[in-house]
Amino acid sequence: MNKNRLEAFSDGVLAVAITLLVLDLHVDHSSPLSLAEQFRDEWPTFAAYVVSFFYIGVIWLNHHSLFRMATGVDRGVLVYNLILLLFVTAIPFTTSTYAEYVQDDGMDAKLAVLAYGVVTEGMAISFTLILARLLKVGLTSGKLPADQGRKLLVRYGIGTVVYPVITLIGWFYPPAMLVFYAGVIGYYLGPGLRTLDHLTGSD
Amino acid sequence: MNKNRLEAFSDGVLAVAITLLVLDLHVDHSSPLSLAEQFRDEWPTFAAYVVSFFYIGVIWLNHHSLFRMATGVDRGVLVYNLILLLFVTAIPFTTSTYAEYVQDDGMDAKLAVLAYGVVTEGMAISFTLILARLLKVGLTSGKLPADQGRKLLVRYGIGTVVYPVITLIGWFYPPAMLVFYAGVIGYYLGPGLRTLDHLTGSD
Amino acid sequence: MNKNRLEAFSDGVLAVAITLLVLDLHVDHSSPLSLAEQFRDEWPTFAAYVVSFFYIGVIWLNHHSLFRMATGVDRGVLVYNLILLLFVTAIPFTTSTYAEYVQDDGMDAKLAVLAYGVVTEGMAISFTLILARLLKVGLTSGKLPADQGRKLLVRYGIGTVVYPVITLIGWFYPPAMLVFYAGVIGYYLGPGLRTLDHLTGSD
Amino acid sequence: MNKNRLEAFSDGVLAVAITLLVLDLHVDHSSPLSLAEQFRDEWPTFAAYVVSFFYIGVIWLNHHSLFRMATGVDRGVLVYNLILLLFVTAIPFTTSTYAEYVQDDGMDAKLAVLAYGVVTEGMAISFTLILARLLKVGLTSGKLPADQGRKLLVRYGIGTVVYPVITLIGWFYPPAMLVFYAGVIGYYLGPGLRTLDHLTGSD
Repeated sequence: MNKNRLEAFSDGVLAVAITLLVLDLHVDHSSPLSLAEQFRDEWPTFAAYVVSFFYIGVIWLNHHSLFRMATGVDRGVLVYNLILLLFVTAIPFTTSTYAEYVQDDGMDAKLAVLAYGVVTEGMAISFTLILARLLKVGLTSGKLPADQGRKLLVRYGIGTVVYPVITLIGWFYPPAMLVFYAGVIGYYLGPGLRTLDHLTGSD
Repeated sequence: MNKNRLEAFSDGVLAVAITLLVLDLHVDHSSPLSLAEQFRDEWPTFAAYVVSFFYIGVIWLNHHSLFRMATGVDRGVLVYNLILLLFVTAIPFTTSTYAEYVQDDGMDAKLAVLAYGVVTEGMAISFTLILARLLKVGLTSGKLPADQGRKLLVRYGIGTVVYPVITLIGWFYPPAMLVFYAGVIGYYLGPGLRTLDHLTGSD
Repeated sequence: MNKNRLEAFSDGVLAVAITLLVLDLHVDHSSPLSLAEQFRDEWPTFAAYVVSFFYIGVIWLNHHSLFRMATGVDRGVLVYNLILLLFVTAIPFTTSTYAEYVQDDGMDAKLAVLAYGVVTEGMAISFTLILARLLKVGLTSGKLPADQGRKLLVRYGIGTVVYPVITLIGWFYPPAMLVFYAGVIGYYLGPGLRTLDHLTGSD
Repeated sequence: MNKNRLEAFSDGVLAVAITLLVLDLHVDHSSPLSLAEQFRDEWPTFAAYVVSFFYIGVIWLNHHSLFRMATGVDRGVLVYNLILLLFVTAIPFTTSTYAEYVQDDGMDAKLAVLAYGVVTEGMAISFTLILARLLKVGLTSGKLPADQGRKLLVRYGIGTVVYPVITLIGWFYPPAMLVFYAGVIGYYLGPGLRTLDHLTGSD
């Protein structure tokens, strides 16, 4: 099966999801607070906006790399890709939930962290499943020997281990969560992307 | 007429519609309920979100398969495709209506089920009309003999019979509706997709 | 200049605008009205949704035909196309304004009709300017002799005369406005599209 | 690395962002004000809508020209492009903030001007970084000699000087801000675009 429309549809969903994040940013003219006070009080919203924006951006970059390597797609890949997109489209929701509750005490902030973590974990698992499927059915370009495939699987699979750890830390100290996700983004935009490009032969 | 821009426009509308579903998910920081209580009370919203997401995803997959088979489009196909997209873009509305009213007694939940059913039925009829038109004016690839065309028509046409049945069941027991749509999705992602790929020669 | 990215960007804007129309459809669970009563009271919203959906759909079809005929674009075409898209993205706003005010007495409904009319008129003028520019600078395919160009200009230009007439009628009887736009859509989906295809040689 | 999916993703984000601007336009049927009064009171919203629409449109045109000139993209370009898109998606937010607060006295209107200015400045810097990166790593088409590259850099870099000046003027007289941005747009749609086309050899 041709991968073009899968890429086009995924690009569309990712582009809409990343742009919908902005709907969380808003000020209220009828508020008794001044604009400066509203900006100050909404810092978690701005911080979460920036982090989630780059997070979806990184998903797009990885998706880009992954399917550049694919020579085609089969039914399994289409289904796993739909599951991936389900989790991606949920990110604007978990982002706004986190921004609203991160400063609360008790269970509310913890649950908001958990929701964000569950969605990123689901995303990471779907990503790994797509890669594993592509490798299993031989839909990767000839440049990819078996040990490279394993390295790629480890590289993607590692996200599925990292996100629960971040979630655990965030459970105890919710504001720290964003910092760790920023670290993940930094990794992917720097050495991670380089490794991937190297492994997929697009260096 | 060339089918490329029809595919690009349809991909765009489907990508936006599937992503807009997330706007139904929201929590309210000013609510007296805790976040856990809000998540619990909103289970119909989450369930409807997941089902409608995959439902639109399946429509995209089928649209993908259908137009991969098409060698071109004519005016009739363009018009039927617009009607199809009208019903698809209405799904975020019927989804949120269903999620809000499914737990009510009496006519409200029944009407919400009916609205969801009318939209899916309209979608299925449009889909069948597109296929029938492509077959009638000979805009399908050479791989498709007449009896295959009939099989495809039956396969798509069957949705127009299934959705009224689901709606009837949902009328009497609204929460069951989503389970049956989940069944339809499972069918399409599994054997349905396989049959279609086989019939359209993209196996 | 290559027309591909103009087409891709325009398809994107049209796809988002046509899908955003659905945000007007909503029911309110906290309303004292039953769902049936809400559906009944919202009939102008549903009617305006369907008409504006097909209206934007027709703009997409015409845009499709127009640029299929173009061999390239210049700076003037890019600017006129941006103006066209400005008016198209305003349609969800004038649609919801019309739906909310059509049943009011006095100036409010008249003004809502006028807003809808101004936007469609702006759209029609932009469309005509794009065509005139393509013809003037010779960016149309060789199949188009001068008299065909004039016929096309008349065909598009006629919209700029029709919309003010519809607006005038709607000014005196607001609910009639949608019926006349439905007529315009019917014309474009039927004989209009046929004429255009004939003139642009894609018959 | 191939530039196609970067262009497709950027087109998607720009198309969604430019269309989301319309969500700021709304009238309220339950308001005691007539529709005419609401239209009159909302003039800053309409003015900001038109200016920001063309502003994003100009970004798209420039993005279009820039990447038409690029022969490929590397990791740095992908990251700078993500930062560019972050600022672009923030424009609907700063636009609505400006429209709501421009008529206020004191710090609120000044801060709204500053927010708009910071976002456009961030956009201009990202744009310059993309161009500088393309020039540095030699990912521009052969038509571009070194002195042309410097001219292009000056031409883009100038935005980073112009926006702070506009913001300073707007700080003292907030309503003037839009007029100056309209001037920037006029420059880019006229002589700016011509210069760019000339420099990038697509004249």
